[in-house]
Amino acid sequence: MRVGVLGIGKTPHKIQHNKSLRDLIVEAGRTAISDAGVSPSDIQMLYVGNVGSVGFNYENSTGLMAAHHLGVVPAGAVRVEAACGTGAWALHLGVVAIASGLYDTVMVVGAEKMNDLATVEGTSVIAQAADSKEEYFSGLTFPSGVALTARKYMQTYGLTEEDLAHTSVKNHHYGARNPYAHLRFECTVEEVMRSAKVADPLKLYEVCPMTDAGSALVLCREEILKDQPDKPQVYITATAMASGTWYAVSDGLEDAHKLFAEPAAKAYAMAGVSAGDIDVAEIYNSFAIQEPLGIEGLGFAEQGKGWEGAADGSTWIDGKVAVNLSGGLLCKGHPLGATGSSQAVDIIEQLRGTAPEGIQRKDAAIGISACRGGPGAVGAIHIYQREG
Amino acid sequence: MRVGVLGIGKTPHKIQHNKSLRDLIVEAGRTAISDAGVSPSDIQMLYVGNVGSVGFNYENSTGLMAAHHLGVVPAGAVRVEAACGTGAWALHLGVVAIASGLYDTVMVVGAEKMNDLATVEGTSVIAQAADSKEEYFSGLTFPSGVALTARKYMQTYGLTEEDLAHTSVKNHHYGARNPYAHLRFECTVEEVMRSAKVADPLKLYEVCPMTDAGSALVLCREEILKDQPDKPQVYITATAMASGTWYAVSDGLEDAHKLFAEPAAKAYAMAGVSAGDIDVAEIYNSFAIQEPLGIEGLGFAEQGKGWEGAADGSTWIDGKVAVNLSGGLLCKGHPLGATGSSQAVDIIEQLRGTAPEGIQRKDAAIGISACRGGPGAVGAIHIYQREG
Repeated sequence: MRVGVLGIGKTPHKIQHNKSLRDLIVEAGRTAISDAGVSPSDIQMLYVGNVGSVGFNYENSTGLMAAHHLGVVPAGAVRVEAACGTGAWALHLGVVAIASGLYDTVMVVGAEKMNDLATVEGTSVIAQAADSKEEYFSGLTFPSGVALTARKYMQTYGLTEEDLAHTSVKNHHYGARNPYAHLRFECTVEEVMRSAKVADPLKLYEVCPMTDAGSALVLCREEILKDQPDKPQVYITATAMASGTWYAVSDGLEDAHKLFAEPAAKAYAMAGVSAGDIDVAEIYNSFAIQEPLGIEGLGFAEQGKGWEGAADGSTWIDGKVAVNLSGGLLCKGHPLGATGSSQAVDIIEQLRGTAPEGIQRKDAAIGISACRGGPGAVGAIHIYQREG
Repeated sequence: MRVGVLGIGKTPHKIQHNKSLRDLIVEAGRTAISDAGVSPSDIQMLYVGNVGSVGFNYENSTGLMAAHHLGVVPAGAVRVEAACGTGAWALHLGVVAIASGLYDTVMVVGAEKMNDLATVEGTSVIAQAADSKEEYFSGLTFPSGVALTARKYMQTYGLTEEDLAHTSVKNHHYGARNPYAHLRFECTVEEVMRSAKVADPLKLYEVCPMTDAGSALVLCREEILKDQPDKPQVYITATAMASGTWYAVSDGLEDAHKLFAEPAAKAYAMAGVSAGDIDVAEIYNSFAIQEPLGIEGLGFAEQGKGWEGAADGSTWIDGKVAVNLSGGLLCKGHPLGATGSSQAVDIIEQLRGTAPEGIQRKDAAIGISACRGGPGAVGAIHIYQREG
């Protein structure tokens, strides 16, 4: 399976009180259409990833709204939602649509406008993405649920809070160099340790901010991109989706590993590559602990060792595999429905060689994105390859 | 393109205070899995159509919840939403997934639990599926928006309120015979005319009720069904999705016709059939006026003549094409996310010859479902054919 990436677009990741959800969709979408060199009427299908527009923005049917405002009518248009895996799901559906042979050119947009509400209200909207009937009403929000996972990891593998802090240091090193990132400052292990406790053992610098953003891709049949050799030759060569446990409190470490390991194995087979071939990876880290978990799930490190790369340099820009050169969700922010598509756009920029100065991996040719959703409910893997 | 229908399931359509959204999903889904003769672990992907769980039920991520409670983990799972076209979109994605060759067996579920709220609150949730920022805040709900379309149709084609009333008479004739329908009583033209005005010119018997229900399908590669000749040989042979105008007030009749006519033309070409070949049709009619509009869009009648079949018998059970033998949304109700999948299940029962007594079309071999969404924002066509 090979699906061409004809165009990409994204908005800055930040608090954007001056822009509505539809503004973000239009800005990211039009950039991608322009980058693709197509007209809106060339788009045959539109897949929009958005998690919380009903809760955040008092509107639904974001896919249909997007079709109208992007001018792609009468293309079919739909909103898809799978907690924090939403943007990756929109991408998956676009890839499968092209792979089916039924469509030539389709569009994927992920967008979220989180800051219409106060943070405490927003946390409540987000909590609906997990089990709102049993867990949330018992007091379990996402920060407190993931904190349980972090504690379990620390107990199981002997990880200290200082060990984990290196992950935030690395992300902030690159986030500071990414003009599209929400949080743009560097920090030290000591500063991570001193930052306020959010949900013990997770501290403020180990938690993503609430961010408004959109990102978009135009995908096409392999031949369409091949016939335009002047365009960057980047293809999506694997897509694999999995679901896992729905409950935070039963999300053991084995489940957390499997959530990425199983679809990653399928994706590597589909693309014909192995973990050792990957140059750049964007790995879901709305909370710092999820980065080592993801590194292990993708096969870049043994279980319990995923945190070491941030400390010893092997997951930095010149390391064995560069992880989260965008600054990750910790710095880029986590605009729920836009996160999966944003990971894709960032990897594609790496493979095109157009990433900002200071975060471009030299000669990046093979990339992977890994998106989680829910406590441990979505594992979404995509592999990208540059040709020539 | 040929996709096998391995199993179907549905819950009754009615107000179900004793069941939650997840109960409806599990009931419909398990019935379909059982009918398919597969185990949950055979399901590779799950597409859940649900419009309003955040507004109606204070929960999100219905796809992930469904995967957990149906026991199909680690299959990929997602919720899709496109206003009232939601269930048809879930079906489309399942069909495309099989057509892509990437999956052997997938599952589609549509479900909505609308009656956790009072009707007036529910109407507000529904209104978010159209333009909540400009139209709804100006007072335009779905009933009032569609009433404008009805008035325009009446003015353009000289349709009287008595003419239109025949559509409700036909739907209620069959709805009374469908044990799964919400409203099970017959009515006369006079009774339709005497029923309370909801939004002039639409009256109570021309408006669907608020209904709780779920419906589900298990789809498979053509060969898998062919290899089980004892199972009913029903295949989905076409899927076509379109979007239209996002605004109710600009939804002219030409747009309303095109919304079905364009994807229907594609679907007929894909299946290699024409309008005249269709035995049974389920056509979206949350409001009575949408049935003649749909009949015209599908090519069963000229523009302005779509209402005649309900009066002269040609869209009744023994007519040229039997339309809405289920009782349509007017009687079956319109459980938003379940409506598209319910239309599919009802057509498949017709082709299997297992529809309830009094609503089974004799020797039905080719069927079509046509689902709308938003004021005029989704047109979704599927064609079904029986073999042998």
